[in-house]
Amino acid sequence: MDIKKVNSMDFGEFVDVFGNVIERCPLIAAAVWSQRPFSDLEDLKKHFFAFIDALPQSGQEGILRCHPDLAGSELRRGTLTAESQREQSGAGLTTLGADERLRLAELNAQYRARFGFPFVLAARFSDRAAVSRELARRLLCPSAQELRTALGEVKKIGSLRLADLLRADPAKL
Amino acid sequence: MDIKKVNSMDFGEFVDVFGNVIERCPLIAAAVWSQRPFSDLEDLKKHFFAFIDALPQSGQEGILRCHPDLAGSELRRGTLTAESQREQSGAGLTTLGADERLRLAELNAQYRARFGFPFVLAARFSDRAAVSRELARRLLCPSAQELRTALGEVKKIGSLRLADLLRADPAKL
Repeated sequence: MDIKKVNSMDFGEFVDVFGNVIERCPLIAAAVWSQRPFSDLEDLKKHFFAFIDALPQSGQEGILRCHPDLAGSELRRGTLTAESQREQSGAGLTTLGADERLRLAELNAQYRARFGFPFVLAARFSDRAAVSRELARRLLCPSAQELRTALGEVKKIGSLRLADLLRADPAKL
Repeated sequence: MDIKKVNSMDFGEFVDVFGNVIERCPLIAAAVWSQRPFSDLEDLKKHFFAFIDALPQSGQEGILRCHPDLAGSELRRGTLTAESQREQSGAGLTTLGADERLRLAELNAQYRARFGFPFVLAARFSDRAAVSRELARRLLCPSAQELRTALGEVKKIGSLRLADLLRADPAKL
């Protein structure tokens, strides 16, 4: 799909295609449509990120709270979005042993209790060993720093999803 | 459900229960959770509305774009949210004759083309005759006024959904 095609979409099509660039936040894609036309993938990405950055802190936390746990109950129940399912599967999180799953579940619960949002990580840049190592590390970070880190991960995930949709080369992002 | 129960929810439960108070915008419920504890239904409602009011115009338009058409393709395909299905059904929009459906579809299309968002109306305060009369009337309003009107309808819908969830008396809202 090229940018001309993107710019020709009515808001219904646009939200259908880009509604999950930010996990379970179709509102953001629906808002970004107001900024068309877009010059290229980079420009489209810029508008998604600008919307996130302009939200009050509660809204930024809200975005994080729309994300599932990694290797959590939604993976087990099969209720992940297609994008999340692919990303978690690619990082090897669908084939964890019982011990690893339990360890991650405990860390996820501690993280949620500490920060009030779930642990978010661009799983495609990671693997099963790195996920729990990174979770354990970030669990100890100060809250304000952790919010920034987590939103950075949301943007990495969004970049990769946008690149997939426009069939761009992720290495160029 | 009383307010004590609401205040005891972790964000996962809260988003599960209140995620569709604003149609297809779980981000908003997820953001509102940051403002707990809530003193009562009125206070909870206030935080939902304050979040909407604080969004940039693109975000407010984004909320509207997450709404389905009344008596539109989603109703026919059966892909409405449970809340929308109930509301549209209660207003008699599921049993329109072919002529009425066609007339509404034409008006909806004109409205979307004119304003860049779908026609939103609190259907529970309306009936099939009033819907197309109101659509035809609002189609002629200035854009800035229509955005305000439409967001007012989003808030009416949200009030009714919150009241349902807390089993409050809608007459007292």
